Amino acid sequence: MADYLAITGGVGGAKLALGLSHVLEPDQIAFAVNTGDDFEHLGFSISPDIDTLTYTLAELANRELGWGRQDETWAFMETLERLGGETWFRLGDRDLALHTYRTQALAAGRSLTAVTEDICRTLAISQAVLPMSDDPVRTTVLTPDGPLAFQHYFVRDRCRPAVTGFEFQGADRAVLNPRIEALLPGLKGVIICPSNPFVSVDPLLSIGHTRALLAGLDAPVVAVSPIVGGAAIKGPTAKMMKELNIPSSATAVAAHYEGLIDGFVLDEQDRAQQDGIGVPSVVTQSVMLTLDDRIALARTTLEFLQSLG
Amino acid sequence: MADYLAITGGVGGAKLALGLSHVLEPDQIAFAVNTGDDFEHLGFSISPDIDTLTYTLAELANRELGWGRQDETWAFMETLERLGGETWFRLGDRDLALHTYRTQALAAGRSLTAVTEDICRTLAISQAVLPMSDDPVRTTVLTPDGPLAFQHYFVRDRCRPAVTGFEFQGADRAVLNPRIEALLPGLKGVIICPSNPFVSVDPLLSIGHTRALLAGLDAPVVAVSPIVGGAAIKGPTAKMMKELNIPSSATAVAAHYEGLIDGFVLDEQDRAQQDGIGVPSVVTQSVMLTLDDRIALARTTLEFLQSLG
Repeated sequence: MADYLAITGGVGGAKLALGLSHVLEPDQIAFAVNTGDDFEHLGFSISPDIDTLTYTLAELANRELGWGRQDETWAFMETLERLGGETWFRLGDRDLALHTYRTQALAAGRSLTAVTEDICRTLAISQAVLPMSDDPVRTTVLTPDGPLAFQHYFVRDRCRPAVTGFEFQGADRAVLNPRIEALLPGLKGVIICPSNPFVSVDPLLSIGHTRALLAGLDAPVVAVSPIVGGAAIKGPTAKMMKELNIPSSATAVAAHYEGLIDGFVLDEQDRAQQDGIGVPSVVTQSVMLTLDDRIALARTTLEFLQSLG
Repeated sequence: MADYLAITGGVGGAKLALGLSHVLEPDQIAFAVNTGDDFEHLGFSISPDIDTLTYTLAELANRELGWGRQDETWAFMETLERLGGETWFRLGDRDLALHTYRTQALAAGRSLTAVTEDICRTLAISQAVLPMSDDPVRTTVLTPDGPLAFQHYFVRDRCRPAVTGFEFQGADRAVLNPRIEALLPGLKGVIICPSNPFVSVDPLLSIGHTRALLAGLDAPVVAVSPIVGGAAIKGPTAKMMKELNIPSSATAVAAHYEGLIDGFVLDEQDRAQQDGIGVPSVVTQSVMLTLDDRIALARTTLEFLQSLG
């Protein structure tokens, strides 16, 4: 059973996850992964955040693009474009094999957890990568022009529409992955990775009583700020906060997790905000450009967690 | 409305079809294509004979492999193999785009005829390529060890099992493509291409009263022998005939079409059999190695048809 659970969404979360995988033994850490931005596209069942994490842990992630996998080819997409098919969501030839494999396995009645486990085995990933739920939860972004399915907002419309709120369809009926729930009593700590609080972390927290379950743990919960110097390292977090009339600050992220977290990790650039954080906090260099940065942030976060234990 | 209808299955049929497309104006010829070996695989709706024909007419066919399309890449298949997926049916990255496009369109409720028309437009094919039916007809190969779905027999098991018979599941309920039926009264002739009589032509003939419909046409029907010198140019026709205790001869092919055809085209090598053919026949060089061979056979077949009219 894992000592630590890291809750993670897209690229930022995967960076810290990789750092954690270098610092901890494989059986010490488990990852609870957002599936709110999963979707069905061109007949494929696509799980972008799971794939970002597994590709990152397997060192197959495409660093140049910031998504997808390395050594990718695009013959499928080129040909589909010529046929007039939908090409706004870019699917590489190799990436597509994974989607096909998953789609087939899900259609045959396997759970997303089981399929993800198969994929991890193939990619030689030893850590537990656990979808937040085997039930569908679909993040919808509310905008003045109506609701948008997450990938339509995120990829097709490039986060241009203003955000007025979010819905996590299916979250009320979904069951937290039993493998995550089973870990909770034995945990030494929970890390909320520097992922988007609204669309990467909240979907998991919104499943049944998960937020209360995590808040009630004996083990400490710490979040790492995805906002540094008023901006997001990647993605629309800061833009969303502005549109929601929330200051795009580390303090506001900590406030978002109020009642849930026991500690907060913020960047050197935001040291001035430390006094306003309502929980114990640690200031560190949190921008992860290199593998060493990822490992250093993982170490700092774990030491901080241990100091709260 | 087309003057000629060519009934075609796989590679051999597509070669003569290409010849016909060089000899006739695009609106003079229509192709009725076998869909008995269509199947659903890895979630994709695959129509091998339609694709062989369209790739051939668009000059995109992979001549080296004898199937699939040229300039193909295999990243999808390589990755799927690593994931432990099914790889006995080789799907190239570009080919896969076409299957995805078709699968999506069919799932959205379009007919196979309409999707094929879209694909032809994209590939700049001007002739009508008409699936034999928009209803599913599935060829099953009967063997001493039980029935085999066609592609399992043909590709996965490489035609190794002995054949005891065939079933065309769905053929009794299927409706002949109305676009094919609408052509019949205006035709000047029907050409049965040198395709496998049992698994490329019989599926179409077995749809409702299609065989009787064609036999009753005023216009002549001629078949081109797929058997030359006792062997099939490509594929398991001769092997099947032996297993079914039918001599693997041009004569036996003509006998198979007895009552349906008004003429028969056989190869120089089989000139000695000409007297045994029960209908008017023409002897020609029918092995199509070059484009010129295809054009020459198309011309000979059309002239022969006209002589019977």
